[in-house]
Amino acid sequence: MERVLSGMRPTGKLHIGHYFGALKNWVKLQDEYECFYFVADWHALTTSYENPENIVEYRRDLVLDWLSVGIDPEKSTLFVQSKNLYHAELFVLLSMITPVSWLERCPSYKEIKQELKDRDLNNIGFLSYPLLQTVDIILYSAKYVPVGVDQLPHIEISREIVRRFHFLYKCEIFVEPEGLLTEVPKLLGTDGRKMSKSYGNTIMLSEDLKSVEKKILTMMTDTNRKRRTDPGNPDICPVFDYHKVFSTDEERAEIIDGCKNAKIGCIDCKRVLLKHLFSFLEPIQEKRRYYENLIKDVDEFLAPGQKKAEETAGAIMEKVRKVMRV
Amino acid sequence: MERVLSGMRPTGKLHIGHYFGALKNWVKLQDEYECFYFVADWHALTTSYENPENIVEYRRDLVLDWLSVGIDPEKSTLFVQSKNLYHAELFVLLSMITPVSWLERCPSYKEIKQELKDRDLNNIGFLSYPLLQTVDIILYSAKYVPVGVDQLPHIEISREIVRRFHFLYKCEIFVEPEGLLTEVPKLLGTDGRKMSKSYGNTIMLSEDLKSVEKKILTMMTDTNRKRRTDPGNPDICPVFDYHKVFSTDEERAEIIDGCKNAKIGCIDCKRVLLKHLFSFLEPIQEKRRYYENLIKDVDEFLAPGQKKAEETAGAIMEKVRKVMRV
Repeated sequence: MERVLSGMRPTGKLHIGHYFGALKNWVKLQDEYECFYFVADWHALTTSYENPENIVEYRRDLVLDWLSVGIDPEKSTLFVQSKNLYHAELFVLLSMITPVSWLERCPSYKEIKQELKDRDLNNIGFLSYPLLQTVDIILYSAKYVPVGVDQLPHIEISREIVRRFHFLYKCEIFVEPEGLLTEVPKLLGTDGRKMSKSYGNTIMLSEDLKSVEKKILTMMTDTNRKRRTDPGNPDICPVFDYHKVFSTDEERAEIIDGCKNAKIGCIDCKRVLLKHLFSFLEPIQEKRRYYENLIKDVDEFLAPGQKKAEETAGAIMEKVRKVMRV
Repeated sequence: MERVLSGMRPTGKLHIGHYFGALKNWVKLQDEYECFYFVADWHALTTSYENPENIVEYRRDLVLDWLSVGIDPEKSTLFVQSKNLYHAELFVLLSMITPVSWLERCPSYKEIKQELKDRDLNNIGFLSYPLLQTVDIILYSAKYVPVGVDQLPHIEISREIVRRFHFLYKCEIFVEPEGLLTEVPKLLGTDGRKMSKSYGNTIMLSEDLKSVEKKILTMMTDTNRKRRTDPGNPDICPVFDYHKVFSTDEERAEIIDGCKNAKIGCIDCKRVLLKHLFSFLEPIQEKRRYYENLIKDVDEFLAPGQKKAEETAGAIMEKVRKVMRV
């Protein structure tokens, strides 16, 4: 069975954007591939090094969110990056053969720097994070990495590093990874901006349903529809994007008709959505409660996955040390 | 007792330049400090990654050379860098807070690149090697690092990284290291150029005495002294530099007089040197033979030092992880 690897930074509780953007796919991949999913805590430090308060606590939250949506530790190997020091060892070793210019040229390097202008990201760690990602992937001989289009250049760097390594040391140790492009539906935040914790406009997977109701009922809609009697335009309404994900074709047809012809109000439309959101969130939250009670110490819970990750990576590192003569 | 740390790259058998440039001092420091001496095999890769054939074998040679001159594993902690993965872990973590520009500005960065023009050194590993050195030092709370003047900027970077870490994480975990400047006598190679394995002009500590004799007897002297009857100038004679290290004041006075007034020939002068060189090298080589027979597996021999190094570094890493929240 071919292997898939993916990771998430422990930066807080996950929201429905994370689910439809990644986790839903992770769950599905479990049945088609041997999946390794990891908590990318060192990656969180590349941009949050100045303020790493909650990385440790968020580790537990992240794993609970995974389990709540159906990531199955019996099927997939779950582990924490920082607890497997082979990531660090391979990072040091591959740094010897990775041109600075390959990392400087990476499009995300300048983009993220631009995006997070308030932070000082002129550090070696941030510059090198595509190298750390490469390590994460090839340490487990992962063939596929689920990515969005914007992340394809990182996969390309990983492939180049693998080829350079094989060329320099005349060997074939690593698997050249490939991106597994996944379609991601558009889900904006409740204020119409990108869904992001820092905007406070998210619907968390573990969010209290009362709070979800309140957020949806006050959620931004088509701003041109000022009165109940005005016709609306679902094409530019963030709520309708949610309907595309949650509602049935019939319901959507009714909503389009009702909205465009002012037959229904935004609240009516949102009630339909809320019904679906609740039945989506309820089983997730039930499962989360189950695991919350079950898991006292997340590291202990992850121990089997951690062990398997270490053994898998350890076997690769033996080969790497041999050809690099250390 | 304050701690000293120093390392050497395993790049081949050591020569007398290494002894007078570093090892002699290492031996002395053992009685004044708690010394940690390590085989810097990852550092060897920063410049030799394309051709790492002998790093593993040279590990044994390096340790044998150390022991042969009096490095005492009972007094000092001897270990191999690559076998303590905490070096890699701290390297990853400190990379998050180390500005690229600090490393680019390091004078040795451009100098070595210039010096080793035949190699491609545009890699992250070479750029980051002062960071790796910092890790090596502060992981053991070393207060002093024996260095030549040219290496002081590296110590300065280490101090800056420590201060930045303490400032960002509001703690005092590391010791700010200081350079321990050591005077190094000038010992050129037998051809009058810098003593270097790549020039084939070295006198190895483990070199067969017949070979030493031949090298010294054919060694370059004052090139203006073409005939036995020409007066010579000890001030510009590489052999006389050796006399400064090996011979007595009386002998040197005789040689100066004999050379300047053409009373003695270069061979006479070299015979005096050879007598001293032999009595310097003989006990070293005897000790080396003893350890060669004793040590079957160098890693096994180093195990106690390795364990102590790991424990010392492990205690520091616990504190580091705590403040960086991983």
